[in-house]
Amino acid sequence: MSQKIVGVKASAGIAIGKVFLLANPKLAITTMSIEDPQAEVQRFHDALAKAKADLEGIASHVEKEMGADKADIFKAHLLVLEDPELVDTIQGKIVSDRVNAESALDEVSQGFIQLFEQMDNEYMRERAADIRDVTKRVLSYLLGVEFATPAHLTEEVIVVAEDLTPSDTAQLDRRYVKGFVTDIGGRTSHSAIMARSLEIPAVVGTREITRLTAASSTAIVDGHEGIVILDPTDEEIAFYQRKQKEYDEEKTELLKLVHQKTVTTDQQHVELAANIGSPQDLAGVLANGAEGVGLFRTEFLYMGRENFPTEEEQYLAYQQVLAQMEGKPVVIRTLDIGGDKQLSYLDMPEELNPFLGFRAIRLCLDNQELFRTQLRALLRASVSGNLKIMFPMIATLEEFREAKSILEEEKRGLLEKGIAVSEQIEVGIMIEIPAAAMMADQFANEVDFFSIGTNDLIQYTMAADRMNERVAYLYQPYHPAVLRLIHLVIKAAHEKGKWVGMCGEMAGDPIAIPILLGMGLDEFSMSAVSILPARGQLGRMSKEEAAKHTTTILSMSSSQQVEEFVRRTFHQLDN
Amino acid sequence: MSQKIVGVKASAGIAIGKVFLLANPKLAITTMSIEDPQAEVQRFHDALAKAKADLEGIASHVEKEMGADKADIFKAHLLVLEDPELVDTIQGKIVSDRVNAESALDEVSQGFIQLFEQMDNEYMRERAADIRDVTKRVLSYLLGVEFATPAHLTEEVIVVAEDLTPSDTAQLDRRYVKGFVTDIGGRTSHSAIMARSLEIPAVVGTREITRLTAASSTAIVDGHEGIVILDPTDEEIAFYQRKQKEYDEEKTELLKLVHQKTVTTDQQHVELAANIGSPQDLAGVLANGAEGVGLFRTEFLYMGRENFPTEEEQYLAYQQVLAQMEGKPVVIRTLDIGGDKQLSYLDMPEELNPFLGFRAIRLCLDNQELFRTQLRALLRASVSGNLKIMFPMIATLEEFREAKSILEEEKRGLLEKGIAVSEQIEVGIMIEIPAAAMMADQFANEVDFFSIGTNDLIQYTMAADRMNERVAYLYQPYHPAVLRLIHLVIKAAHEKGKWVGMCGEMAGDPIAIPILLGMGLDEFSMSAVSILPARGQLGRMSKEEAAKHTTTILSMSSSQQVEEFVRRTFHQLDN
Repeated sequence: MSQKIVGVKASAGIAIGKVFLLANPKLAITTMSIEDPQAEVQRFHDALAKAKADLEGIASHVEKEMGADKADIFKAHLLVLEDPELVDTIQGKIVSDRVNAESALDEVSQGFIQLFEQMDNEYMRERAADIRDVTKRVLSYLLGVEFATPAHLTEEVIVVAEDLTPSDTAQLDRRYVKGFVTDIGGRTSHSAIMARSLEIPAVVGTREITRLTAASSTAIVDGHEGIVILDPTDEEIAFYQRKQKEYDEEKTELLKLVHQKTVTTDQQHVELAANIGSPQDLAGVLANGAEGVGLFRTEFLYMGRENFPTEEEQYLAYQQVLAQMEGKPVVIRTLDIGGDKQLSYLDMPEELNPFLGFRAIRLCLDNQELFRTQLRALLRASVSGNLKIMFPMIATLEEFREAKSILEEEKRGLLEKGIAVSEQIEVGIMIEIPAAAMMADQFANEVDFFSIGTNDLIQYTMAADRMNERVAYLYQPYHPAVLRLIHLVIKAAHEKGKWVGMCGEMAGDPIAIPILLGMGLDEFSMSAVSILPARGQLGRMSKEEAAKHTTTILSMSSSQQVEEFVRRTFHQLDN
Repeated sequence: MSQKIVGVKASAGIAIGKVFLLANPKLAITTMSIEDPQAEVQRFHDALAKAKADLEGIASHVEKEMGADKADIFKAHLLVLEDPELVDTIQGKIVSDRVNAESALDEVSQGFIQLFEQMDNEYMRERAADIRDVTKRVLSYLLGVEFATPAHLTEEVIVVAEDLTPSDTAQLDRRYVKGFVTDIGGRTSHSAIMARSLEIPAVVGTREITRLTAASSTAIVDGHEGIVILDPTDEEIAFYQRKQKEYDEEKTELLKLVHQKTVTTDQQHVELAANIGSPQDLAGVLANGAEGVGLFRTEFLYMGRENFPTEEEQYLAYQQVLAQMEGKPVVIRTLDIGGDKQLSYLDMPEELNPFLGFRAIRLCLDNQELFRTQLRALLRASVSGNLKIMFPMIATLEEFREAKSILEEEKRGLLEKGIAVSEQIEVGIMIEIPAAAMMADQFANEVDFFSIGTNDLIQYTMAADRMNERVAYLYQPYHPAVLRLIHLVIKAAHEKGKWVGMCGEMAGDPIAIPILLGMGLDEFSMSAVSILPARGQLGRMSKEEAAKHTTTILSMSSSQQVEEFVRRTFHQLDN
């Protein structure tokens, strides 16, 4: 008899295949007294060095295959291995307790893991997974046990594991791994993010798949619905094969739209752009037919290193993206660091509420050298394409005016030195703080464009940290309060002849798209893989028709009511 | 020659007098090996017991003189002395390192102090002050040194100190201490809060007053302006004596308003109510002529104890307040715990952003027994006065509906048992989340009233934690974005015939009052000491005139512009 398990949708698509249980190697640790602590410390450092070499290899492989931002996690792992708090503590333990390296490593790292795991915050719990992953790698070298990896597969399978560590996921070979299922993890865990980027169907957080799967030979993974079926019946296999075929056909259909513009049935053009995290992401952007880059996050230039990037390094990255986009618009956001995104080389005091803290433009206006360096790099790169500069976390007009005047100053400085700067650079702001949305009419007098950052805007509007599982139910993109703010912003901008984009996750959401189209949003910026489905959806809709529903939607009282209305009214969603 | 020092305004009023330098006793600590660790542990526990007895005495004195919420700090100190993390660590250190108790106490507590002090958050740094205060007390018993205290004064002075610990401040005798000045501390430090409650003029955070004051004999403290003048000239003394006289006359003038209603020059009545933290605060409320209680925070019932308060305990507290207010309106807010307000007996996981976390109504709807117990106590007390129940941190209509239906259920349950419940209870919500403000028109169909909680509303609207010094400049009550939200709420409520109060600090702010009056705010709830000045101010203003400026103010672009406009337009502010 077949068995159905429901988990978290991690990556869309359907896979049917043989089950491959990726068991953790048994790393049994015995605590032993040692005679020669120095030799033991040396043995520990040898294992560290091998683990580092592994990780460097994986990082450069991933950077090449999946882009720099996906490789960040391995650079973070390398930093864990170089963290004196961990390494020195282990070394100290070997010497003072005269115990073997395995035991010292296990005890110290378990302490850190427990600390992070107790936190009621998905992001911090993921840090525990990082340490576990790294520790396992070093332990396997110390014990001489082969480190289990899905890299050695030679046939098509569905990988089942308690958890896929970031390094496991990075080594998944798309030729053989048709899907994967895990016991733990959520939609924002690294394995889920990587699965989407690799386009491997995946379901995570099933709690018990490894236990249930022991006696199973085949499985179906439905990443659309978050469902796994173990030992499916022939009928189920047939049903999912049809579904898989439909999905593949849809994908083929969508691929035809790659070189087309995004036009509604009433001939209205909207721009579909992509969010990117590094120049490496451009391949996916172009392959998916983006009409521009709506958000280029520049943090990657600053992360996983030991000092600030030089103006030249930054210039090269910006220049590369602008040139490759060949005149299509590229919105580059200035540094959004601080809060939960820390730099090891910038002293940032701990904050009680980092999301309400000293970050992004607040930090840049206070660290002007840092800010000016980035602005000079942007200005110099501007002649290579169609650059738009965007400031994040703007709350007040004063902040925008100050940032803009610094930009003007740097521009004058470059021109005086005879360095070319484009005269066409648009300067805009993220609308991600309720105050900015409320003041959109005033901002619209002074900015060239807005880009609505829904991830943060929703958090602040609902006063709910979306990373915090206990209040995540309040992170409601369709809540009328959020929609009213968005509507306010679009109306205010259009009255002053300015354009409005959106670069939060909401821009690519099939439920949100008809609402936003109706409100008149000009640019939708999303992850590259969402562009073709969005183009398909928009191509089946009339902007005029969509606009007729705006007033009705804004007068609703709950997110649920809005969602039901959209599903009922825009039939194509049910296809 | 006189010398002028500028600090932080901590408590209004003017004092002129002899300087009394309250120096910290020198508690020199020598680390010594000890022979008998058990005896040393005993010595440590004896000192602990004496310190506890001290603190219990101070707590009960303060509770009687200043109210239960002011005594909380000493209950918190008692908890520090009972904290196993501190006490067991010190005890362990005495035994394992065989050192004297002074050294172990000093080393362990310094570790905790440093940990808290490094945090970029005023609230957490105040915790360091608590530990320092408690440690000093225990150390002085261990060393047999007399603990310095301002309790022994016998003549009128101005107390100058590096810092006043909470216990110092609690022991200030108003007969002799005419004012105080400190090197450190901010407007929300305990010493500042207590100074306001004792109505002692105070300036804190001068950085160097103890150093400068060494050779001085007299000083002027101007708590209105945050200025201290050392060794004033005769002219300065004369000037400040006049100012002091004016201030006293103003106070006398205001006292005449105690039994009057609050009426504007165009005969419009607004309600001036008080915020209270416990039934002990009622004396001040009545002495200052409040027309009601606009916010009764119920957290005091849950804090500083080891288990939940029973229904009966709560009933008695609510009943007492309702009865003493003799039919005047009393708005009682249901439990607002969670986030940064923790209960030792309720397991609340650590959160990365507690202000955006699982707190208040979110926690109550999830812990229904806790919530239902409080609601039953409120319902039973309702027959003793004019009760209005208010739910905090409401973001969505669903939350309000669920909370209200639980209340209705409990009401039916009581009525079925034959227990009397008032039929006149109004049920309202705090407007402190931007989503609720944006949806005020919809909420107005279902609630009986709104109370705008500006402290949180401003934080979320500006995305700035006001406790975080680095972004505190963004905590702008007069920012047009905040004012627009407030205006939206008042308009929406009035359209549905509902009343709107405000219980944040803004309600008592002389700059905000003309704006709020003009917008039509019905009830202003503030700390008791602000009521008479507010009544005086409102009595000199015309509501119709104030309303004429609303549109102008809402079209301004910055907080500064609003403040300047109000100062210019409402002349009485310059008196």
